Amino acid sequence: MHPLTGPQTPPHSKHLSRRGNRIRQHQGILQEGYTQYHADKHGENNPNGIINMGTSENKLCHDLLHKRLSQPDMVQIQPPMLQYADWKGHRFLREEVARFLSHYCQSPSPLKADNVVVMNGCGSLFSAIAAALCDPEDAILIPTPFYGVITEDVGLYSSARLYHVHLSGEPPFHLTVEKLEGALNRAKAEGVNVKAVILVNPHNPLGEIYSAEEMTSFLEFAKKHELHAIVDEIYMLSVFGERNSFCSVLSHDRLPDPQRTHVMWGLSKDFAMGGMRVGTLYSENRHLVEALDHLGYFHCVSGTTQHQVARLLQDRAWIDWEFLPENRRRLQEAHHYLTTELQGLGVPYLHRPVGFFVWADFSKYLRQPSFSEELELWRHFLRNRVVLSCGQAFSCSTPGWFRIVFADQESCLQLGQNLCFLSLVIRETKETERHRPTDANCSQTVVPSLSSNDFVVMESQVSHSPAKLDSLIDDLRQQIRSSDWLQRNTPELSAGEDPKQLEVFTELLERARK
Amino acid sequence: MHPLTGPQTPPHSKHLSRRGNRIRQHQGILQEGYTQYHADKHGENNPNGIINMGTSENKLCHDLLHKRLSQPDMVQIQPPMLQYADWKGHRFLREEVARFLSHYCQSPSPLKADNVVVMNGCGSLFSAIAAALCDPEDAILIPTPFYGVITEDVGLYSSARLYHVHLSGEPPFHLTVEKLEGALNRAKAEGVNVKAVILVNPHNPLGEIYSAEEMTSFLEFAKKHELHAIVDEIYMLSVFGERNSFCSVLSHDRLPDPQRTHVMWGLSKDFAMGGMRVGTLYSENRHLVEALDHLGYFHCVSGTTQHQVARLLQDRAWIDWEFLPENRRRLQEAHHYLTTELQGLGVPYLHRPVGFFVWADFSKYLRQPSFSEELELWRHFLRNRVVLSCGQAFSCSTPGWFRIVFADQESCLQLGQNLCFLSLVIRETKETERHRPTDANCSQTVVPSLSSNDFVVMESQVSHSPAKLDSLIDDLRQQIRSSDWLQRNTPELSAGEDPKQLEVFTELLERARK
Repeated sequence: MHPLTGPQTPPHSKHLSRRGNRIRQHQGILQEGYTQYHADKHGENNPNGIINMGTSENKLCHDLLHKRLSQPDMVQIQPPMLQYADWKGHRFLREEVARFLSHYCQSPSPLKADNVVVMNGCGSLFSAIAAALCDPEDAILIPTPFYGVITEDVGLYSSARLYHVHLSGEPPFHLTVEKLEGALNRAKAEGVNVKAVILVNPHNPLGEIYSAEEMTSFLEFAKKHELHAIVDEIYMLSVFGERNSFCSVLSHDRLPDPQRTHVMWGLSKDFAMGGMRVGTLYSENRHLVEALDHLGYFHCVSGTTQHQVARLLQDRAWIDWEFLPENRRRLQEAHHYLTTELQGLGVPYLHRPVGFFVWADFSKYLRQPSFSEELELWRHFLRNRVVLSCGQAFSCSTPGWFRIVFADQESCLQLGQNLCFLSLVIRETKETERHRPTDANCSQTVVPSLSSNDFVVMESQVSHSPAKLDSLIDDLRQQIRSSDWLQRNTPELSAGEDPKQLEVFTELLERARK
Repeated sequence: MHPLTGPQTPPHSKHLSRRGNRIRQHQGILQEGYTQYHADKHGENNPNGIINMGTSENKLCHDLLHKRLSQPDMVQIQPPMLQYADWKGHRFLREEVARFLSHYCQSPSPLKADNVVVMNGCGSLFSAIAAALCDPEDAILIPTPFYGVITEDVGLYSSARLYHVHLSGEPPFHLTVEKLEGALNRAKAEGVNVKAVILVNPHNPLGEIYSAEEMTSFLEFAKKHELHAIVDEIYMLSVFGERNSFCSVLSHDRLPDPQRTHVMWGLSKDFAMGGMRVGTLYSENRHLVEALDHLGYFHCVSGTTQHQVARLLQDRAWIDWEFLPENRRRLQEAHHYLTTELQGLGVPYLHRPVGFFVWADFSKYLRQPSFSEELELWRHFLRNRVVLSCGQAFSCSTPGWFRIVFADQESCLQLGQNLCFLSLVIRETKETERHRPTDANCSQTVVPSLSSNDFVVMESQVSHSPAKLDSLIDDLRQQIRSSDWLQRNTPELSAGEDPKQLEVFTELLERARK
């Protein structure tokens, strides 16, 4: 049984095959939290529902998307859109994707539509690529931690498995060719047949951005061992730092092994539309593209959606002058809220101005440095109506890390409310003496350096250590009052645009006051 | 090697796994014709391109769909549509599907949204159901002939295989419980593990409509042997005969084994929108629905498309008073064109007023009653720019049968042109003495009985047997002149709505005159 399956594992069904039962019983931690959240979502009508800070989704820009997608050019019902078409995507869309990637990845020469495959999301691409490159039980290298769902993506249908490259040592979670070589050697010694390596850049959940030199060294490693390199660049436009250091492998003048380099991107993250289910692959390997063409039948996107997406990618004025700058501004603001809160709580985290999440170290709240303790803490958060992603769901090798999503909220106002609530839970967690006796980490006092790209460990607030919940809440109230948060949000609150939100917020304050 | 793979089989690729090569090399006859057609489509700008009478697609009603799908209610960009959602379909859509099926299948009590799964097409549903019900190499019974792509649907990803129930004897292609029992016994004797049976009603390619009593007997057979029954009713609203005898299994008061009865439907056929990629499953089996929920991630439909489909299914006035009657009228008219042409040519066919195709017997054009001869005839058609589906691609047990699609044209005008061309090819086929020496079938003279539902064998035109191509063409010209086809289409031709079409038609006539 999978260690994360938990008590909810459904019993064996006589109606399903062994495989069917395996699929049905499959329930990682992310799935469990996600399912509970969907059954009891926090919202205007359900103020005591579960707050989702676990799903890596950007809900900050719905207004911009709503406005653009409601324009008349989005509706165009031409016969080909309603008819059977190229299973790897309509040519008009693949051409648009090629132009888009050529521009935003800064390719040295125009990318070709023939090398583009469109499927209903990158999960489907992972599944189909795994089926085409791997036989059942073959393996794909992946550095840990990583976005945990990839395990199911390559395994559920295609029975390929991931072989982990653990990133221990200092600096934390640093990927090197030596670590890749070490893992590959271990795999070979164990008789595991490794076919490929997955490289995620910008990284989820670390937020790491690998330089062109680093990526080249990883690709040289893949070439040396005749491994396919599956490069996932799905967060490439969600970098919001002052200096954007991201560099797509498609911008490289010469790839070490172009026939074995396959680059994924999609609209779920960078265009905040996971519900549109559009992922893209760029590969010069004709054989892979042909195999994906055959599997594409199971993963294709409706014609009307393909039209919408093509129109969107075509509209450079909107992308460059409206969507991207505003999206980055909002991401940065939300990131600032969360990291300020974490600093206030003394929770160390990796400061990376990219993506929708922060990778934070809650190890000081573990009674023991173990994964079962981490799981206990994760369940504690869930019982307290907050779903996060814990490190073991991402196969992290060190217990205590959590991914906190700051963009899965309709607005910063809502994020503020959620953070208040999260703080309450975290403080209460401390109060109930969950922290381990020898709290070495907590006694560390390192000056935060938010302007740097380094690992950030904040001054601990253990010294506060209030004796009662009352005083904890009092602390929180003080914090809310003393911060400029209310003031900053006063226009939004008083505008009365969403009186329900004000109500919910008031209720949260009330709870804090009780 | 698959017997239908043909000379186009690509060589083994060193970059792909064994499975990847198998997927890439997989190329049934349907695929081959489809690929050639897509590379060289007949159309306004390519009058010498390939005419597609092989793909079961309804292109007769684009005007109605265009009008409805362009209305403002179709555009509604709500946050949930752009966000990650229930992988088995948004609740609003599953509720709409349940209401729709309750009404059009005449279920005795309202169907439930919880039992509905939505995926991007019925091919995906077949794939996911096969994964959930079968382990690799397990089998599913299916009567032959059948829509050939189902082989790939259950096999490509899920490695389940079909076990054929051959429908020989008289009346032709008649399905009985005895034949199902016989096939199951053979499978067991061969050590094959059969998990399910696929029942397609109305049938593709036969056009057979099974009565409630027949379906019940098949379902009783499935229950007796603890087989799942996968009932595919994707053509349920495309019955255009005077008396609509179709009866969904969802209308039955009591199903023999509701936990093992799973009913498929979709919008590809009945709403003529295969490009929208929407298939639905109705099953009371919670375990199956849960397994499909997990696989649904790979097969989900974009939120905006789910909204469009929900709106469409909701609009009963449009469905009942605009779309369905007009669609049926056009299907009937096109069916009439084709069957009249086949009668004129003396090609026997099954007269079934349902679906988009006619199942016709070209065995008299085979030099030998063999599948290699059938394949040769199919290639002969393809070389002459017409793609059809031959029986062996549908695992038919008798050589010489072809499925001819009459609805994969933009209009009846185009169908008329295509039929002229098809007739030319068929007559030329005869002229070149392709027919086998002992032409027993051709000498049959059975009076056509178009009003009955029986097997129709037309009076053969072998007696014409003109000596030269010139006189053949002359025959065709006579036929065009003497028929009311031109007259019937005069308003369309002279309206000048599409001068290109008139041009193409004139060119075809010119070709006939040369």
